[in-house]
Amino acid sequence: MIIDCHGHYTTAPKALQAYRDAQLAALKNPAGAPRTKGTVPITDDEIRESLEGAQLKLQRARGTDVTIFSPRASAMAHHIGDETTSRHWSEQCNDLIARVCALYPENFVGVCQLPQSPGVPPERSIAELERCVNELGFIGCNLNPDPSGGHWTSPPLTDRWWYPLYEKLVELDVPAMVHVSSSCNANFHATGAHYLNADTTAFMQFLTADLFKDFPTLRFVIPHGGGAVPYHWGRYRGLAQDLKRPPLGDLIRDNVFFDTCVYHQPGIDLLVAVVPIDNILFGSEMVGAVRGIDPETGHYFDDTKRYIDALTSIGDADKRKIFEDNARKVYPRIGARLKGSRSSDDSARAAPRADGARAFQASDQQS
Amino acid sequence: MIIDCHGHYTTAPKALQAYRDAQLAALKNPAGAPRTKGTVPITDDEIRESLEGAQLKLQRARGTDVTIFSPRASAMAHHIGDETTSRHWSEQCNDLIARVCALYPENFVGVCQLPQSPGVPPERSIAELERCVNELGFIGCNLNPDPSGGHWTSPPLTDRWWYPLYEKLVELDVPAMVHVSSSCNANFHATGAHYLNADTTAFMQFLTADLFKDFPTLRFVIPHGGGAVPYHWGRYRGLAQDLKRPPLGDLIRDNVFFDTCVYHQPGIDLLVAVVPIDNILFGSEMVGAVRGIDPETGHYFDDTKRYIDALTSIGDADKRKIFEDNARKVYPRIGARLKGSRSSDDSARAAPRADGARAFQASDQQS
Repeated sequence: MIIDCHGHYTTAPKALQAYRDAQLAALKNPAGAPRTKGTVPITDDEIRESLEGAQLKLQRARGTDVTIFSPRASAMAHHIGDETTSRHWSEQCNDLIARVCALYPENFVGVCQLPQSPGVPPERSIAELERCVNELGFIGCNLNPDPSGGHWTSPPLTDRWWYPLYEKLVELDVPAMVHVSSSCNANFHATGAHYLNADTTAFMQFLTADLFKDFPTLRFVIPHGGGAVPYHWGRYRGLAQDLKRPPLGDLIRDNVFFDTCVYHQPGIDLLVAVVPIDNILFGSEMVGAVRGIDPETGHYFDDTKRYIDALTSIGDADKRKIFEDNARKVYPRIGARLKGSRSSDDSARAAPRADGARAFQASDQQS
Repeated sequence: MIIDCHGHYTTAPKALQAYRDAQLAALKNPAGAPRTKGTVPITDDEIRESLEGAQLKLQRARGTDVTIFSPRASAMAHHIGDETTSRHWSEQCNDLIARVCALYPENFVGVCQLPQSPGVPPERSIAELERCVNELGFIGCNLNPDPSGGHWTSPPLTDRWWYPLYEKLVELDVPAMVHVSSSCNANFHATGAHYLNADTTAFMQFLTADLFKDFPTLRFVIPHGGGAVPYHWGRYRGLAQDLKRPPLGDLIRDNVFFDTCVYHQPGIDLLVAVVPIDNILFGSEMVGAVRGIDPETGHYFDDTKRYIDALTSIGDADKRKIFEDNARKVYPRIGARLKGSRSSDDSARAAPRADGARAFQASDQQS
């Protein structure tokens, strides 16, 4: 089985954005209608249509099985509005993910957006986390280390500010992917700078603190291949040594994991050369940050499975860890979600299915 | 000849820090003594002593010839005090670099710190830039894209806010290294996050704007191997394509360069595999961010010459570009500074000199 740990619902039907637009408009008119969660009028057919030509088609074409699926990261925009804004918006986005997962239980397993806001204590996100895990069957969450959207006004992830949320993550046995949202700071392009900076920043925070002594079973996935970290693995090994910290392998072993959202072969080669295989999870961020086809390969930049398949430096057992075993370890609730839909052995084959191959056109450009 | 484009005076005699401490103390007592540039009482012997056991010893041991040398980056701390604070501090730091270069004209060529402050227009740094280039013989400057120290309150580097300074850089034909200083934002470890984030951020700013149409000869060096950029070269190629921007090679050709401050072999392998050789300059940041010896190799993490030497993917001509030719192109004023001290051919040999080998002890730890 091939589990893609990093997918966002970037193709949601337009009614979701219309809801958001109305919500933001209402913010400017506080004397208007009472602020309620409201509704997002989307039919099951609209959901199917939004996925069949995009994520589902690409899953089949690429030969991946299931995507750990969350609301569009750039649209979380925790810096907009207030706590109520963020709560209603997160609930709607998560409800929609739950519907996706109900319609396609073999293809998608849910991860939730948290209703964060700048300055609002993280424990205020716990209710929505519990709702998503206990009622909607989600298996993790995305945690935004910078709800201010590029001004970085929150304490570091290793600060006790975040501990109440971590206690709940540990209790529920679900991991968090460290994922910022859009940037309202003109310095930071979202997908080209802010995302990667946040990944790098989080890793260095973890390196310099004893968070995992306090929470030995707390698990974070750092997306986008770990930002700058694997490329600078020597720098981090050296910094850890200079700072009298444990070796990186020990520091991250049970707690910090990188996905494979690195969109060229040399980057993936480096990732698996330096980061322990047990700490790498297959991910593509499809359909996401980069939507085009690489003219150097003729394949989608974000078809990261191809890069793993092409690796000669590791064997099939290690690839299976990256594709499946590590995800099952980091997201233990995924087992129950997938049980019955298909067995691991049946779908361990990497070859694309016939219907996927048929649906795929190399010239397709995701919009 | 081997030119190290990235070295800071991290070992300056204690009197420099004492000056800074007094300056900062005076800030808290504005009714006290008038604010003047003052003096930093350091003897030539103290300067020699600060270098002989550190940068000079390591140059000899590693077989490098000349370092493009600037004040300690983390100590610039543009976020502290005001414009006058920053001007006096920058002048003192630059004066000290000029003395280093006068004492060791074969080993060091100067690059200046700019007297930046949050919110102060960049043209206010021009006088010090001109003084350093025209009077002190410096060949470039370090430009801090975030004088706020981790709050990122300045406009992007592609904003017209910076244009007056760029006009002067072009007129003087000197490049700027994009280099932040220490962080006063608890989220960002300076050398483990803030530095790399700034590199990544600057690159994406350059990718998304037409700065180099306005300044075709403006040149930036992005240090620390370009932050996260080479590792994510596929992502950036894809983003450029999606955004209808030119291919990366065209975008950066005459304007954006990366140094080799990447402290392990796989990172350097990746760098030269994806970034055009013409855009890579040898650099070590020695004595700098990482001071220890890599237990995996038995050599200093920041002995980046070893990684270049070990490359089998490129030949001697390309290595010579990285070690010398590209630096001469990016820093054209270096030719006049080195003329007479030694010819390129004489020192093109990569082998360590005898005195360097003698001085070097593998167990030495720079403090």
